[in-house]
Amino acid sequence: MTFKVGLLGLGTVGTGTAQILLDPADRQPLLQELELYRVGVRSLDKPRSVDISRDRLTTDLESIVRDPAVDIVVELLGGLEPSRSLILTAIAHGKHVVTANKAVIARYGEEIFAAAADAGVYVLLEAAVGGGIPVIEPLKQSLCANRIQGILGIINGTTNYILTRMQREGGDFGPILADAQRLGYAEADPTADVDGWDAADKIAILASLAFGGRVERSQITCEGIRAITASDIAYAEGLGFTIKLLAKAKRQHQGDTWRLEASVYPTLVPLSHPLASVNDVYNAILVEGDPVGQVMFFGPGAGAGPTASAVVADILNIAAVLSAGSDRDHLDPLLACRYLQTVELAPAAETAARFYLRIVVQDSPGVIGKVGTIFGEQGISLESIVQTDVSGETAELVVITHEVQEGIMRQAITQLEALPLVQAIANLLHVL
Amino acid sequence: MTFKVGLLGLGTVGTGTAQILLDPADRQPLLQELELYRVGVRSLDKPRSVDISRDRLTTDLESIVRDPAVDIVVELLGGLEPSRSLILTAIAHGKHVVTANKAVIARYGEEIFAAAADAGVYVLLEAAVGGGIPVIEPLKQSLCANRIQGILGIINGTTNYILTRMQREGGDFGPILADAQRLGYAEADPTADVDGWDAADKIAILASLAFGGRVERSQITCEGIRAITASDIAYAEGLGFTIKLLAKAKRQHQGDTWRLEASVYPTLVPLSHPLASVNDVYNAILVEGDPVGQVMFFGPGAGAGPTASAVVADILNIAAVLSAGSDRDHLDPLLACRYLQTVELAPAAETAARFYLRIVVQDSPGVIGKVGTIFGEQGISLESIVQTDVSGETAELVVITHEVQEGIMRQAITQLEALPLVQAIANLLHVL
Repeated sequence: MTFKVGLLGLGTVGTGTAQILLDPADRQPLLQELELYRVGVRSLDKPRSVDISRDRLTTDLESIVRDPAVDIVVELLGGLEPSRSLILTAIAHGKHVVTANKAVIARYGEEIFAAAADAGVYVLLEAAVGGGIPVIEPLKQSLCANRIQGILGIINGTTNYILTRMQREGGDFGPILADAQRLGYAEADPTADVDGWDAADKIAILASLAFGGRVERSQITCEGIRAITASDIAYAEGLGFTIKLLAKAKRQHQGDTWRLEASVYPTLVPLSHPLASVNDVYNAILVEGDPVGQVMFFGPGAGAGPTASAVVADILNIAAVLSAGSDRDHLDPLLACRYLQTVELAPAAETAARFYLRIVVQDSPGVIGKVGTIFGEQGISLESIVQTDVSGETAELVVITHEVQEGIMRQAITQLEALPLVQAIANLLHVL
Repeated sequence: MTFKVGLLGLGTVGTGTAQILLDPADRQPLLQELELYRVGVRSLDKPRSVDISRDRLTTDLESIVRDPAVDIVVELLGGLEPSRSLILTAIAHGKHVVTANKAVIARYGEEIFAAAADAGVYVLLEAAVGGGIPVIEPLKQSLCANRIQGILGIINGTTNYILTRMQREGGDFGPILADAQRLGYAEADPTADVDGWDAADKIAILASLAFGGRVERSQITCEGIRAITASDIAYAEGLGFTIKLLAKAKRQHQGDTWRLEASVYPTLVPLSHPLASVNDVYNAILVEGDPVGQVMFFGPGAGAGPTASAVVADILNIAAVLSAGSDRDHLDPLLACRYLQTVELAPAAETAARFYLRIVVQDSPGVIGKVGTIFGEQGISLESIVQTDVSGETAELVVITHEVQEGIMRQAITQLEALPLVQAIANLLHVL
């Protein structure tokens, strides 16, 4: 029983995927049953690093998702459109779908999975989060007995690369971003990565699996790393922290019920924390569950090979269950994706955290007292407050708070800004 | 559709498993369909930390695996017998089996999986390796597109706890083992752990999944940690290493074909290596594959909660596919275990490694020259040779070699032992 694969996109990951399909030796025998049947590309004439006969290539992507001979459509275009439409058309034509497209799944997952359920096809997305790191499927199967308490992850390679270099070189964001773009670690338009949108897409997907319900992507608080300066990193290091862009999904208990805290924030991570040593383009996802405790998945979060590894695994798992007789009326529950309810998200103001605050003040004797008083009036207890970087008229205060509701912290900041001797709130970051 | 579970063993993991089954709230809904139907124990009168009605308990384990009402047998007795016989009887009576028993699977896996295939039942064992860490199933599914090159793991919690304390406290093996036994981190008879047998069982299981074939447990070279001394750890630390008990399975290429290196050795691990920071009872498994690169799974390698998490996940996955209509003629390929061939193992003498060698010698001027000459005659190049710990007549030489075939290294040691000024080969360890 052979399966015809229609591949949409022959970029980095698409090429990596094609390479595995064309080199099945010493891999799972079922790979021999997969045929790279048609490949949709933007230009037919572009030179390729993988040997695909010209007659399998087409620029007409629509024709692939409608082709009656195609069994499995692999969508590796990225972006919202035409990806979403092509996926839905493929489903409507009874094709199974494998995608690495976190943006489409995070926003249109419900629509796509509902259509897949109606059509009796699979939609798999192991490659959408963490590249080659197995995490989607372990959450669906291996950890399914747990009451998941939280997920904490470094799930964007570009920002982790930039922050790692800022840490090592003491450099600022701008020049290192530019260099990362030159080296291909950041895209020409880096917005989705550096503003945290990509990480927010991914945590929305992980949370929906871990907490058994749809997580509304637009409600996930999301802050990127543009505002992080070399001095923030230096101050953090002096206090025993490194700064990482952390995606978080955490169960917030309210009496007998609960809701979900979901966010992406640049966060001060204690150097002793397992995530503190995850550097460069590596990703790591820490899952805390009852009763498993903490388990961590670590590996390359992007790149042709790792991501293709996850894509082809999804293709093989679909081929395996189809070979064993799975049909549209008998979907394999281990692969089928089911949302149980919509998960209620907690407003950012009602989530608690520790905070790092950097304030530019006039260098006058009473300043720490005045600032400290405002925190006291708000009932915010401080872990440390350090005056640094005295340069003539102005000084900087670096404050680390104990846990406090974000809303209350914002009120304190409003009051601080009203103080004449406070020149600027230079930065506000979360602390793990 | 409900499923009756017959639980064999109500020790630590058995109790943890029962606790999840009796507390399904906020977990996977399917848990509601599982009934803890019968529980086999050694004594009916022992006080239990879990509330199971007396009439479900029995000391007649045989009656559980033969009970027509039982759908899934969960074997948590450990040890070879009666576990093996009970598992085979359960299979013969058409029961699906979930086990955490690495010893039985490593030795009798082929017999058990063959019987399961004939009977059309599942035998799942996620809990057998790495406690709650998802690794069996990711190897079966998520990484199945890869050509696995190697697996490197810290997969025995007891020895990692002992080595971690030896490292921190500078203590010797004996007293720390005794303390570990007092604290419950090591068993009264610690042999299976400290001599590396448990780790060898586990790497045999991982290798059989990763390399698609049966791995003969008895051919796995296995060395424990009894011979590790405080001074070995101190010397290693001085050279930038920490000592871990590493289980290894590595593809050894020979022209167009390959065979497997499989071993358990106390090994000097560079402090910069991801496995170097895996301490106490934690486990970590590093998998290297083409094209995924290196992915690592980290978490608690033992304990009631983590291991029960894996046991119940296996039960739920069986229940899920049975609910979806899987029957003995249509086993789900994602859960079914298939060995493709028997994997040929490379003899230890024909595997290459770097070595750490500690030699007690007479403290005389020419000693380093004489020792160095022997290595030279064997064509073994040295990375470093340090003379330390001079105490009157005797000194210690600590040698780190470059990569060399183990057989050749053994010849060199034989020659060293023949040197009059060599009083003893104090220790020989592998270096990663």
